Amino acid sequence: MENIAVLGAGSWGTALALVLADNGHRVRLWGHRAEQINEINEKRTNEKYLPGVRLPDAIIGYEDLCAALDGVAIVVLAVPTKAIRAVLADVRACLAEPITVVAVSKGIEPGTHKRVSEMVAEEMGEWLEDVVVLSGPSHAEEVVLRHPTTVAVSSPNMEAARRIQDIFMNHQYFRVYTNQDLIGVEVGGALKNIIALAAGISDGLGYGDNAKAALITRGLVEIARLGCALGANPLTFAGLTGVGDLIVTCTSVHSRNWRAGYMLGQGKKLDDVLEGMGMVVEGVRTTKAAYELANKLGVKMPITEALYEVLFAGKDPKEAVDSLMARGKKEEMDDLKNIFAEQE
Amino acid sequence: MENIAVLGAGSWGTALALVLADNGHRVRLWGHRAEQINEINEKRTNEKYLPGVRLPDAIIGYEDLCAALDGVAIVVLAVPTKAIRAVLADVRACLAEPITVVAVSKGIEPGTHKRVSEMVAEEMGEWLEDVVVLSGPSHAEEVVLRHPTTVAVSSPNMEAARRIQDIFMNHQYFRVYTNQDLIGVEVGGALKNIIALAAGISDGLGYGDNAKAALITRGLVEIARLGCALGANPLTFAGLTGVGDLIVTCTSVHSRNWRAGYMLGQGKKLDDVLEGMGMVVEGVRTTKAAYELANKLGVKMPITEALYEVLFAGKDPKEAVDSLMARGKKEEMDDLKNIFAEQE
Repeated sequence: MENIAVLGAGSWGTALALVLADNGHRVRLWGHRAEQINEINEKRTNEKYLPGVRLPDAIIGYEDLCAALDGVAIVVLAVPTKAIRAVLADVRACLAEPITVVAVSKGIEPGTHKRVSEMVAEEMGEWLEDVVVLSGPSHAEEVVLRHPTTVAVSSPNMEAARRIQDIFMNHQYFRVYTNQDLIGVEVGGALKNIIALAAGISDGLGYGDNAKAALITRGLVEIARLGCALGANPLTFAGLTGVGDLIVTCTSVHSRNWRAGYMLGQGKKLDDVLEGMGMVVEGVRTTKAAYELANKLGVKMPITEALYEVLFAGKDPKEAVDSLMARGKKEEMDDLKNIFAEQE
Repeated sequence: MENIAVLGAGSWGTALALVLADNGHRVRLWGHRAEQINEINEKRTNEKYLPGVRLPDAIIGYEDLCAALDGVAIVVLAVPTKAIRAVLADVRACLAEPITVVAVSKGIEPGTHKRVSEMVAEEMGEWLEDVVVLSGPSHAEEVVLRHPTTVAVSSPNMEAARRIQDIFMNHQYFRVYTNQDLIGVEVGGALKNIIALAAGISDGLGYGDNAKAALITRGLVEIARLGCALGANPLTFAGLTGVGDLIVTCTSVHSRNWRAGYMLGQGKKLDDVLEGMGMVVEGVRTTKAAYELANKLGVKMPITEALYEVLFAGKDPKEAVDSLMARGKKEEMDDLKNIFAEQE
């Protein structure tokens, strides 16, 4: 039994806090809104993010970051990706000893093109014992219902990954695999949100499951292509954090990125969509970062490029999807071979 | 412009007839029920299989097989897999010249473990010019709405595959890739129905999208494992006829195999489910064939085995799914590496 701090009381942070509590750990759930923390401690709920869910008593809400971190060796970082650097600067100021950070948010930073684990390492410096990434097909809304869920953990130090596997895994509903390919795990988790936005647009346009399956399949190819250019193992994209997470994000009504795409497909403007959601849509920033990276590395990413033009250059969504479908005759293997050739 | 016969006036045969008619070909759509053929010719509908759809005038229904085949060089074979041998025996008796058969039904024959193209070659003998397989994520109900759809064609003779690509492809909604890996294309198309049954069971039990994504991902791994043991290229399983078709079959309400699984998950008996559907559920026979093949070749297929026990040995569906989730800790890559190692 451990004292574990979870930073970020959104839906995913709260769901992981619940898993840890179910596994017998004492969990400190930190958020910066006093009202929400009071609700967690007094009513045992977090209605905005996980309506109808009763939180276990082993979860204690904290508004004071240093109090939440006091004497804790494992910290689950579940804040939006764009807040990571600011939050970790505050974390550093509280610490007396190095900690292990479990990073569970997804994304690639525009401008620097850093993965989340790289941002964590940079910000934490000597205060970092280990960084472990946890990713996979896992809607928070289902985890809190204790529905069967599988995820993968990865780390530059696989010994640390196995420690985190032990802490999260249970035999009732939460199954954790290890995967040594940190780059692949992070790239898959981040880029799936791009394809989810595109799949949402296709659905919002009224195209069907055939079109969406084609988008997901071709999307997986371009995710793998960029991942391999960054040093990932192509096999990872055939696993839970690749195709698994891609499927759940593109086909589930729980997915925020899919929902944002759906509204774009129906003709809404990006700013209105983002305002209306009231939650972070990671795929928008990730599209920008992936677009920049693809250009820099000379990697072909037609779906990402089309989405970038829709999001940032005012392109009509229908025109974008139609142009993806209307390219010339092709041998399917040509693309697939190019990716997997990187393996040899 | 060609005269093309489509054998089998179910939903897929009728949808492909519509694509061919849209592309300017004259299509003879053969079925053995006089009532249905009269409906097609007199009302231009096929209400049982594709309610609400008006068929193009270039489709003519035929009840007489030899009349449908008269002077035709390309035959699309869209009858249920278990009827293929009987129908081709009748086809042979009508022919004056060898024909090209485009096989669009999916499955592996229990007992012989033959793929559809092998059954076609055996039955047709010297009357076969070429056999081409067409497969991919393509619900008939969406194709007839002219929603964007992508499929792949494969053949022992890729020249023939390219001819069939030209006949089916159009720039409005139907996109056709070629793929040289005939075994992979056929195994993916057949075995996806097993995973769709399992995914339906998971949904019928009330488990969520996380569980289903895990089943699909692990299902893809075991499909690829059997496919590689049979000589397929593992890359095919990352493409349209692999993961693409798997996604659409496991996540769409149009999927008969998913629906059959859903009813099993809700506690219905197999016989009642099959009777209630009134259409063929290919996955049931394919589960048997794949189970036999996996045993013969020593390939580990835990989802297929669990499903076999549910379908044919009275195992409780909930117990089967729960046991799939409750195995020990694992390194995810171990499985993936074993498959892709076959490549070298």
